[in-house]
Amino acid sequence: MKLSEAGLEITRLQNVDTVFPAQDILVQSGQLVQYGAGIYGYNSIPLKLRANIEKIIKEELEKIGCVEVQLPLLQPRSIWDESGRWNGYVEEGTLLTVKTEKSEFCLAPTAEEAIVEFSKRKLKSHKNLPTVYYQIGEKFRNEIRSRGFLLRGKSFLMMDAYSFNKDEKDLVKSYELLKIAYKNIFERLGLNVFPVAADNGAIGGKKSEEYMMISQIGEDTVLYDSKTGQGFNIEIKEKDNFIDYLKDYGIEDISSLKEEKTVELGHIFQLGTKYSETMNATYVDSNGEEKVFYMGCYGIGVSRTLATVYENNVVKDKNNNPCGFVLPYSLAPYKVQIIYKKEKENKALEIYELLNSNGVACILDDREDTTIGSSIKDVKILGTPYMIVLGDKTNDGELEIENVKTENKEIIKENIILEYFKNLSK
Amino acid sequence: MKLSEAGLEITRLQNVDTVFPAQDILVQSGQLVQYGAGIYGYNSIPLKLRANIEKIIKEELEKIGCVEVQLPLLQPRSIWDESGRWNGYVEEGTLLTVKTEKSEFCLAPTAEEAIVEFSKRKLKSHKNLPTVYYQIGEKFRNEIRSRGFLLRGKSFLMMDAYSFNKDEKDLVKSYELLKIAYKNIFERLGLNVFPVAADNGAIGGKKSEEYMMISQIGEDTVLYDSKTGQGFNIEIKEKDNFIDYLKDYGIEDISSLKEEKTVELGHIFQLGTKYSETMNATYVDSNGEEKVFYMGCYGIGVSRTLATVYENNVVKDKNNNPCGFVLPYSLAPYKVQIIYKKEKENKALEIYELLNSNGVACILDDREDTTIGSSIKDVKILGTPYMIVLGDKTNDGELEIENVKTENKEIIKENIILEYFKNLSK
Repeated sequence: MKLSEAGLEITRLQNVDTVFPAQDILVQSGQLVQYGAGIYGYNSIPLKLRANIEKIIKEELEKIGCVEVQLPLLQPRSIWDESGRWNGYVEEGTLLTVKTEKSEFCLAPTAEEAIVEFSKRKLKSHKNLPTVYYQIGEKFRNEIRSRGFLLRGKSFLMMDAYSFNKDEKDLVKSYELLKIAYKNIFERLGLNVFPVAADNGAIGGKKSEEYMMISQIGEDTVLYDSKTGQGFNIEIKEKDNFIDYLKDYGIEDISSLKEEKTVELGHIFQLGTKYSETMNATYVDSNGEEKVFYMGCYGIGVSRTLATVYENNVVKDKNNNPCGFVLPYSLAPYKVQIIYKKEKENKALEIYELLNSNGVACILDDREDTTIGSSIKDVKILGTPYMIVLGDKTNDGELEIENVKTENKEIIKENIILEYFKNLSK
Repeated sequence: MKLSEAGLEITRLQNVDTVFPAQDILVQSGQLVQYGAGIYGYNSIPLKLRANIEKIIKEELEKIGCVEVQLPLLQPRSIWDESGRWNGYVEEGTLLTVKTEKSEFCLAPTAEEAIVEFSKRKLKSHKNLPTVYYQIGEKFRNEIRSRGFLLRGKSFLMMDAYSFNKDEKDLVKSYELLKIAYKNIFERLGLNVFPVAADNGAIGGKKSEEYMMISQIGEDTVLYDSKTGQGFNIEIKEKDNFIDYLKDYGIEDISSLKEEKTVELGHIFQLGTKYSETMNATYVDSNGEEKVFYMGCYGIGVSRTLATVYENNVVKDKNNNPCGFVLPYSLAPYKVQIIYKKEKENKALEIYELLNSNGVACILDDREDTTIGSSIKDVKILGTPYMIVLGDKTNDGELEIENVKTENKEIIKENIILEYFKNLSK
């Protein structure tokens, strides 16, 4: 991408937010545009980063056999009446609703009803089970207290998966498979996310777990055991059998437990027969008998994960003020940004073409009115992990490459540039 | 994909719709699920096909320098009041609106207001122009008369692009560039789509063109000149200067004009300063003066294009009844479907793994309760362009491959199978 054609005008940062510096910088630089409380538009770089996150989620879910679907954003009231949730959600005030002359709809806040409706007609036989459907789609919530830019908004992207199982044992199997996928997803995203057991009692199955990451941007507090990588709802401290409960998770030494501020990125549930019973969703088992599905549901907040990736990679200037962010190489939509002085324009273009045409996505800072100094600052505004500076420091046939995060600079022979980036992708 | 794990149960077709056979088959086979008038959910194959269509649209738009963005689905009333369109849309009854205690929103039916708001803060200088932003996103319309499954619904996927230009001359340049992209997009989709001039008078610029395809599924009628590939609004016949008007398009012989039933897949407009004036969207020109943008807008109905690809590829049985569809090889999410008799299961699995791991996406019909005959029928329900049958007809080391559309069968050596599909992708 040539920066002159990016539909972006980067201005000097002012009073960067101290709690959510990365997202404030995205807004100040026009990469995110706010339309109202909790409603944002995306320019291309955060959108491409989000697509990279979605790709990882999809790959890991498909690896375990999940099937991608797309459920409607406009959900008819009838299915919510069937499950019995319409009135409760309306009273709570979280449902956004739409009326036409003939019907009433809500804007999908979640999709249990919609997926049951979807599956009722498709999964008629035990031979179709287990099936795990998933989608990545926009969700809506009448969020009174929007918070932290993309962290909690009226409209946000979510991955939501739903397993259909023939009995509880199979539901646990699907649940455990999803846990493996979640582990892989967050590892590939470079986020140290761990499961937090909800307080459902130690015995009788862990029916629900949240996926949390220790972070100052979060609004939860959990007990985290760094030895086992297991988290717990803070309320377990009040349990009578607190110590025994922990033993079930292999924790003998309570001193390794610490209270930590966390952000929630995912949540998984064993729903059981709750929705299939109320909505009468059945399959025919191997004896020809009609049975209700056992269901699980599994969510990852995609826009929230995007926000967390940005906030997790903030860098600071000499005065310890946030001045940008450096995205992990594997996730960054553009791997390297080329900055050059006017006389080296042809060489800059040549390197740009060479890298792009060999799969190393590259930004060329070809703006007319910038200095090398301000161009270098802007690399951290876009989050590009490497930069090549064509200034006065290098001889012909040499290039200066800088790892933006470590500030480590190297002068390399121009003819090994492709190899250099090939090694980084390994 | 193994068919037993696809979350699909294909039942025998009944009374297939005569106007929209392909989409009726998608619904009967559970690949599309209807939730209400004009509201559908997608199972994986149509969703993947739609993703392939989106990929082609994106590639062609990015080739001409368009920048992908994402604008909100929930648009605040304030920007619609600013453009002056809120009341008109509400009176017309096409706007779906959402109220919260504090604010009012509409569900995006289009995004001129949202993109002006987006650009107002970003494209401050003439150096940022021209910029063409585009998005692929859900749109909503309170469609009283839903029609033709995905063709006209309450919720549908659209590509909408918006050009920001410094003057009319530059707007025409962007418009012409988009026309080239449109031509390439529809060619790659295998759809014979042509521009239809709207009746804005021959001189003074063609301010708006629709992209149409001759088809019985459509609800428009246009005059089409097969020699030039140009279409016209049927109303031009009433023009006084009808013949002169046609000459401007290089049409001398009026006998080549025919009335045709068409489906509209795209629409492009030169908006001029309509929105930038009412919404006060300006940039600073090279003399330091504030000027309003000249804008163009460009749409392609993505779900409608998906429907058209399906309907355009319907196949019929011996009794001339629609029995399925065969997707074009380049668009099909799965290129080949493997059908086998029980004793050849290991060989079938081996071929399946070989093709999949070499980039030839493949469906294995591993369902327990089907016969070879019904499995062969189901290939056309999923739209797969090739099938491999492991039955009694071939010797060891041989495979029977059938081109589903032409019904041309070949017996090839098993060891050239990868090469066979490599040649098809060329």
